[in-house]
Amino acid sequence: METAAPQPQQARPTTPVPATAPAPPGDEELAALLAHWRAANYLSVGQIYLLDNALLTEELRPEHIKPRLLGHWGTSPGLNLVHTHLNRVITARDLDAICVWGPGHGGPAVVANSWLDGSYSATYPDIGRDADGMARLFRQFSFPGGIPSHVAPETPGSIHEGGELGYSLSHAYGAAFDNPDLLVACVIGDGEAETGPLAASWHSNKFLDPVHDGAVLPILHLNGYKIANPTVLARLGEGELDELMRGYGHEPIHVTGDDPVAVHRAMAVAMDTALDRIAAIQDAARARRDGERPRWPMIVLRTPKGWTGPAEVDGLPVEGTWRAHQVPLSGVRDNPEHLRQLEAWLRSYRPEELFDDEGRPTAAVLACVPQGERRLGMNPHANGGLLLRDLPMPPLEDFAVPVETPGATTHEPTRVLGDLLERIMAATTPRRDFRLVGPDETASNRLEAVYRASGKAWEAEVLDTDEHLQRGGRVMEILSEHTCQGWLEGYLLTGRHGLFSCYEAFVHIVDSMANQHIKWLRTARRLRWRRPIASLNYLLTSHVWRQDHNGFSHQDPGFVDHVLNKSPEAVRVYLPPDANTLLSVADHVLRSRDYVNVVVAGKQPCFDWLGLDDARAHCARGAGLWEWAGTDDGSRVPDVVLACAGDVPTQEVLAASALLRRHLPDLAVRVVNVVDLARLLPEAEHPHGMPDREYDALMPPGTPVIFGYHGYPWLIHRLTYRRANHADLHVRGYKEEGTTTTPFDMVVRNDLDRYRLVMDVIDRVPGLAVRASGLRQQMADVRFRHHDWIREHGADLPEVADWSWAEAIRPLTS
Amino acid sequence: METAAPQPQQARPTTPVPATAPAPPGDEELAALLAHWRAANYLSVGQIYLLDNALLTEELRPEHIKPRLLGHWGTSPGLNLVHTHLNRVITARDLDAICVWGPGHGGPAVVANSWLDGSYSATYPDIGRDADGMARLFRQFSFPGGIPSHVAPETPGSIHEGGELGYSLSHAYGAAFDNPDLLVACVIGDGEAETGPLAASWHSNKFLDPVHDGAVLPILHLNGYKIANPTVLARLGEGELDELMRGYGHEPIHVTGDDPVAVHRAMAVAMDTALDRIAAIQDAARARRDGERPRWPMIVLRTPKGWTGPAEVDGLPVEGTWRAHQVPLSGVRDNPEHLRQLEAWLRSYRPEELFDDEGRPTAAVLACVPQGERRLGMNPHANGGLLLRDLPMPPLEDFAVPVETPGATTHEPTRVLGDLLERIMAATTPRRDFRLVGPDETASNRLEAVYRASGKAWEAEVLDTDEHLQRGGRVMEILSEHTCQGWLEGYLLTGRHGLFSCYEAFVHIVDSMANQHIKWLRTARRLRWRRPIASLNYLLTSHVWRQDHNGFSHQDPGFVDHVLNKSPEAVRVYLPPDANTLLSVADHVLRSRDYVNVVVAGKQPCFDWLGLDDARAHCARGAGLWEWAGTDDGSRVPDVVLACAGDVPTQEVLAASALLRRHLPDLAVRVVNVVDLARLLPEAEHPHGMPDREYDALMPPGTPVIFGYHGYPWLIHRLTYRRANHADLHVRGYKEEGTTTTPFDMVVRNDLDRYRLVMDVIDRVPGLAVRASGLRQQMADVRFRHHDWIREHGADLPEVADWSWAEAIRPLTS
Repeated sequence: METAAPQPQQARPTTPVPATAPAPPGDEELAALLAHWRAANYLSVGQIYLLDNALLTEELRPEHIKPRLLGHWGTSPGLNLVHTHLNRVITARDLDAICVWGPGHGGPAVVANSWLDGSYSATYPDIGRDADGMARLFRQFSFPGGIPSHVAPETPGSIHEGGELGYSLSHAYGAAFDNPDLLVACVIGDGEAETGPLAASWHSNKFLDPVHDGAVLPILHLNGYKIANPTVLARLGEGELDELMRGYGHEPIHVTGDDPVAVHRAMAVAMDTALDRIAAIQDAARARRDGERPRWPMIVLRTPKGWTGPAEVDGLPVEGTWRAHQVPLSGVRDNPEHLRQLEAWLRSYRPEELFDDEGRPTAAVLACVPQGERRLGMNPHANGGLLLRDLPMPPLEDFAVPVETPGATTHEPTRVLGDLLERIMAATTPRRDFRLVGPDETASNRLEAVYRASGKAWEAEVLDTDEHLQRGGRVMEILSEHTCQGWLEGYLLTGRHGLFSCYEAFVHIVDSMANQHIKWLRTARRLRWRRPIASLNYLLTSHVWRQDHNGFSHQDPGFVDHVLNKSPEAVRVYLPPDANTLLSVADHVLRSRDYVNVVVAGKQPCFDWLGLDDARAHCARGAGLWEWAGTDDGSRVPDVVLACAGDVPTQEVLAASALLRRHLPDLAVRVVNVVDLARLLPEAEHPHGMPDREYDALMPPGTPVIFGYHGYPWLIHRLTYRRANHADLHVRGYKEEGTTTTPFDMVVRNDLDRYRLVMDVIDRVPGLAVRASGLRQQMADVRFRHHDWIREHGADLPEVADWSWAEAIRPLTS
Repeated sequence: METAAPQPQQARPTTPVPATAPAPPGDEELAALLAHWRAANYLSVGQIYLLDNALLTEELRPEHIKPRLLGHWGTSPGLNLVHTHLNRVITARDLDAICVWGPGHGGPAVVANSWLDGSYSATYPDIGRDADGMARLFRQFSFPGGIPSHVAPETPGSIHEGGELGYSLSHAYGAAFDNPDLLVACVIGDGEAETGPLAASWHSNKFLDPVHDGAVLPILHLNGYKIANPTVLARLGEGELDELMRGYGHEPIHVTGDDPVAVHRAMAVAMDTALDRIAAIQDAARARRDGERPRWPMIVLRTPKGWTGPAEVDGLPVEGTWRAHQVPLSGVRDNPEHLRQLEAWLRSYRPEELFDDEGRPTAAVLACVPQGERRLGMNPHANGGLLLRDLPMPPLEDFAVPVETPGATTHEPTRVLGDLLERIMAATTPRRDFRLVGPDETASNRLEAVYRASGKAWEAEVLDTDEHLQRGGRVMEILSEHTCQGWLEGYLLTGRHGLFSCYEAFVHIVDSMANQHIKWLRTARRLRWRRPIASLNYLLTSHVWRQDHNGFSHQDPGFVDHVLNKSPEAVRVYLPPDANTLLSVADHVLRSRDYVNVVVAGKQPCFDWLGLDDARAHCARGAGLWEWAGTDDGSRVPDVVLACAGDVPTQEVLAASALLRRHLPDLAVRVVNVVDLARLLPEAEHPHGMPDREYDALMPPGTPVIFGYHGYPWLIHRLTYRRANHADLHVRGYKEEGTTTTPFDMVVRNDLDRYRLVMDVIDRVPGLAVRASGLRQQMADVRFRHHDWIREHGADLPEVADWSWAEAIRPLTS
């Protein structure tokens, strides 16, 4: 190697070696490991730089170099080291293993290893494991029309996009849950380790059951630097870092060094030590089925950033510094010295020893590589759709609430859903492929019926007063939306099912994670070899209109806006207005594949509007006319359309409709309810978009529409701006007016209350302004009276609190 | 006290007592501490329950009880304990101190303490510190028209809304930076401690300089339960928790118990121990001005949830369990047994000993309470606007790039901004009231000029190869957007200035934090006593169009959509199209108050369009006609408007304009550039909204508008749907088509490229479809040719890569 390395440090596993310490690898095995590592390093550099001359069969010339040099070298040699050693233990122990590559910007490394073990060519037959394939492999990397620079859905064996850092460890745990025979290795970069989501996810080990779940082996890779700074953990003393890892509940094994032979030897011993320890923990727990929470092993690996790359470039240190983060030699096409350094760097790996004349890896390189589905690039857990089974969905009739007359009874929709979830949880007890996650809110969200079928996962101490805690429970609660989301993503990506119940406002905490998962799905859908996985289902409840305890900080309905910005093929949004529609929507989303489904539903008592059959039909249409709720039967153009989406707006719209029916009985009022928000979009914009003809029949152009929407009102405009009736639309919704107050005061503050809606009708239907001016004043008076009343009594006006649809329409229907 | 408490455990500070151990408080002092605590507990319970009979002068009856019981009791007694002991040490040591109350749902506790020290009445004169004031205090809590149930902007002495958990500790550090004489206590609930942002923020101590910064005293309050579950940290053994805290770099002091006398005694010793240690650290560092990173003290306080509340309700244990989280006795108005229990609970505090006949706290209760601005409720650091000074803004002329001809030169806008920031950083060196935060991206975002004026804060180990690290540096980098945001919020809320530079896509990581800060600002603006603070300024760069290295995972321009959902009085969005407009916008936002300003700007070379004077005038208008860029001088209605917002769309629109000028010279093309996005909104919707008349003059109804927008195209529709020309608007922007590719390929994939825009013009201007069909085909051909070219060469077509506005229009202007 031409580049001068820093002085080697002693490589050492610092944890006391157990009585039966694993033997270090022999010379022959070590040579094979080194050969594999060199090959992976060579292929990584090649991907970043080479357009041609892949095997260096001739002297390197500028025209062999890509015109734009893009990619990340710094982390790649460390990932290659880990992959080489995972290959070794998988082969030696016949392990069923996958790996989550946290430093996913090290795409060249993971792709290189996949090509070496043949899984790349198996996935992409046009990239053979030969000279021609190597050339294509190099060229396609971070090249227009080729593959991304990061580990991505395109990467065989990956379940994790490493572009946005923070989620590797929670993904790894998600993959390990309910996979008792699986090992999930997880490389965590020291940059990623500074993020909040990663820092929280260390405690996932309090939720991993050694009997029912597989093992996670965290490998904290400290290469010392981020983009341009040292990392916090790399600059802790080993003692302080050791305390931190022990405080996180782990037994750390340290491997430190920059001498390849010493590090490979130490890494082999560390891996064997960790795997022996994992096996012992699992054996003990599975024999006894109880016991103390184990202290799982983890590995701290300290190697230089950009290890084996150029030590210096243009007089500045590169290897072992932040300067190695992306492309260490940037001027290769124009700067002959850079070109010379690159060639020396590539030749330092001695490619002629690693690949035969046809460009195929030699037997020595492949000695440690596993076969078939044992290869990290081919393990079916990393293409979870291969393993996915349909959920055993019970008949909804068992849970539906009876509805003889709309609005005569009330139920708490999420509580009704809880019964359905209980049944699914029970039916999956033998299969263990369904989990419910939430940040300490399952009971608050009134889904606690599920505890009858499964307790809450909890491996830590249990006290007598505790309820529903269970080793191996499949309800998961931790006060970290990030960890919940990461667990569920990992679980789904490995071929299982689940649902995330969350306070509506705080799901914004995972906005960015949802982004990444949607991007993953959108890309995976375009890859034929990736099999569809179960959708990621959000139940957003404890919503904006009912934050009686918590007020303004807990009010934000904008997650819907956020996801509707993303790829339409992968996102769906539902606002079921009552218990049976929620059941129907839940049934649909739990059967669906490759979507992010957002379901917004209340937990408070809510009128039952539709019987199960009607609910199913209505949800299948996604949006439709509720004849019984208006004074229009659909046979003529109505005077006004009252539209609604969401449980509270539906109630207020129906109350407004009742008021209009009473006071202006000759007004033809059409009530339209929207469950599937994407129906409002044009056909061309979303797969669920409603054809214009159908939309225009429902809400005829020229007819005023007063639309009560659950969230920010302009979202409805953003969805409908291409519709013929757009100028006729007047939307009411949440406009950031809130505090701890009563439910009705909330709708009044935001102009979504029934009285305001009636005033809107009077203001917009031609001719009513004069004819109904008295009614308008009456409505305004009630609003004033309510204002005074709640400030006096701290409760809603009795006529509002006790309002009943059935009562409101009785004089007219009986 | 009627309720039976669990068996007391021994309260103990387990850390070895230093040589000069602080003495525990004497009996008299202890009695005063207990009296204050009982008074605060009484007032907390009173706020949750009582509508009347505040001093319990008569038997409690149902009509004394609020009709709706809302609030959180569980955490309140612990907060009251901490507040009592902070009072003690502030008084004894004449400390300048504030406290961040992480469990902010314990609003009753913080409000109670503020009332006791008189700061509440000083802030709200209608709530006197007497019987009438107490009655109002109780009634207003979580009551319509009253105050929120959480610690909120309305709460004197608070800089932290505790509704959304996770940010207390980073807020505390933000407050302590550059306040060397300030102590910032921070109570962290064990629920909050499970969140990612909180877990990451422990490492803030590697960025706190004992010389230039104040001290943070974290008090981890383990009351054992969240809403419905035990907490992770409370179920670690003390040894494991101790390791965790030491791993985080702290020296933990443990206080555990449920016997009030023992806990108060131990807490007093723990507080004195911690403060002695802090003083010793600061003295040593300030004498030597260097040395090892100190191990700062922190307190682990374990007391029962709902301590001193009902031990059992309806036969179930409450005190010390999750059932104490909100309102332990929920049926008080209807259930006589509950009413009896409540009265016994209230009387257990012996209010007659705590308040005199006029309802004023007795001298014993107030013995430990500080005076004047030393009171936690009156410290000016918690109303930072009181301390805020204008930034010393240098003249922009010193940094402006010369622009003789638009589009003849290029600059990297953020690099130009870096020079301005350097000057501000230098000018604030003596004052230390300006910081720049970012997740390891200051240099990547090309702002590294600031390092000439200040290094990067770093208290950990420094190696020879490191650059720009500095103890006490005011550039802050940690790979945690959450921590960056939390630090900056704490810094601003205590009366200083700053800027957060962030990759555009990953600012979504702090969506929810931005929500909360905007909500804070919106509420604080309505409170006359809260003085305006400096705006929170985001510089979003490394934006969606230039993710050449990173691709799809790094592409998301939706933060703008997110903030524009929030209260318009508090949010501003700017998209300066070149270097001088960025300078002008930066100058404006850094002078502004009480906003969240989002500035989106590129770091890549960008044409210079406007000289400084023109840039200032254009930014002042926020949106305007660029006569020189079109073939319309504003004197007539043009054939088409090409509008743009953002640097890349501006370049493509101007290129399209150049193509039209060349190929269809008689077409009257008007070019409009929008810097201030809210200008597009109607006047009534946003303070910056443009009057319709002005808008219609700029973009006349009936004239097709092709709008190139930086982000999701429908945002422009959402802003303009009420405008007369809305049906004429055709918007191009990012539609989630991305990967690692060339800059021009990105605009082609998303239909924002110059050729597509020309085609859009041809498609939309009446009469052009036939006349310009040849040109349209020519444009389509270039796009196909580019497609083939980049897949062959990995680089953009030379004619695109080398495009120059000056060149493109030369034949027509020379």
